[in-house]
Amino acid sequence: MDLLKQRILKEASVLTSDVLRLDALLNHQVDPELTMEMGKEFARLFAEEHVTKIITVESSGIPVAFTTAQEMKVPLVFARRKKTLIADPDSYMERVPSFTKGIVTDIMVSKQFLKPEDRVLFIDDIIANGDAARGLIKIIERSGATLVGMGVVIEKSFQVGARTLREQGIRVESLVRVASLDNGEIRFE
Amino acid sequence: MDLLKQRILKEASVLTSDVLRLDALLNHQVDPELTMEMGKEFARLFAEEHVTKIITVESSGIPVAFTTAQEMKVPLVFARRKKTLIADPDSYMERVPSFTKGIVTDIMVSKQFLKPEDRVLFIDDIIANGDAARGLIKIIERSGATLVGMGVVIEKSFQVGARTLREQGIRVESLVRVASLDNGEIRFE
Repeated sequence: MDLLKQRILKEASVLTSDVLRLDALLNHQVDPELTMEMGKEFARLFAEEHVTKIITVESSGIPVAFTTAQEMKVPLVFARRKKTLIADPDSYMERVPSFTKGIVTDIMVSKQFLKPEDRVLFIDDIIANGDAARGLIKIIERSGATLVGMGVVIEKSFQVGARTLREQGIRVESLVRVASLDNGEIRFE
Repeated sequence: MDLLKQRILKEASVLTSDVLRLDALLNHQVDPELTMEMGKEFARLFAEEHVTKIITVESSGIPVAFTTAQEMKVPLVFARRKKTLIADPDSYMERVPSFTKGIVTDIMVSKQFLKPEDRVLFIDDIIANGDAARGLIKIIERSGATLVGMGVVIEKSFQVGARTLREQGIRVESLVRVASLDNGEIRFE
């Protein structure tokens, strides 16, 4: 998506050689029109997949997952991050480390919103090491639903997340691939 | 919004006389079409206010805040909840208790996304005691931006949040007012 590349070059900044700051267009402030274009692109890419549900993990994936759901006319489920000590028998739960926050969180999806007959498209804003993605994919597997693939706005292809998922046979589509953030410079693939 | 009342009666459940479970349509699963209708209604209510920015607090307010931003063609900013010990000089931060979670969190907005010339519409999914709302309103005040009002999907009018804000002269518009959850029954105003 060329439009998105231009916006990243204009509005993102490189924090370290690992971390891209996307506050201005993805993680903190959101441009509805750009987000709508992203949703349309994911809907186009997965149009043949008979998707019944969009899923994401709160929070920054919610806007683009929402516009994808809007375009595909299916419900959106956002997995919750919980600080809880008690397992909820009505929920699927997975413990995942967070790359940027350096902490562990539990992500949770109610069993009533993921059924074996569901064909699920997982949408997220960024994939780095893919820890949260792996957690959510485990939840989808446990529910018996079919994961048709994952759409991610920005893939940091110098980190292992997307590659590992593809090696597992999961279709991962990214709108933009960042090959490197070395020397404070954003280099696309 | 009659459509919303019908959906609440059909899909929400009363957990206690204080807490309404809205997982199926607001906090965990979201219907894009219904959420679009909510955004249109807020855009209509605040159409004369020359809004330049929509603001909410992550996470469950994001979908409806997003559709309001879509309709009004302005950016959406979602305040982040942070677990941080260090104040960020580039951000406004307020500490707020959470009614449902029984914990204290810090909510944060980057200074670059709230400017004195902004006319801000605050959108949220639910108002109960209004603690998070008060924190975000303090942040808006500190930034010098103008708060044109608050739009809330569900007002629990038996709790003090919305009333307190109105007494402060803030315009609060709610799509649905729940007067009571006593005896496991949802009673609208």
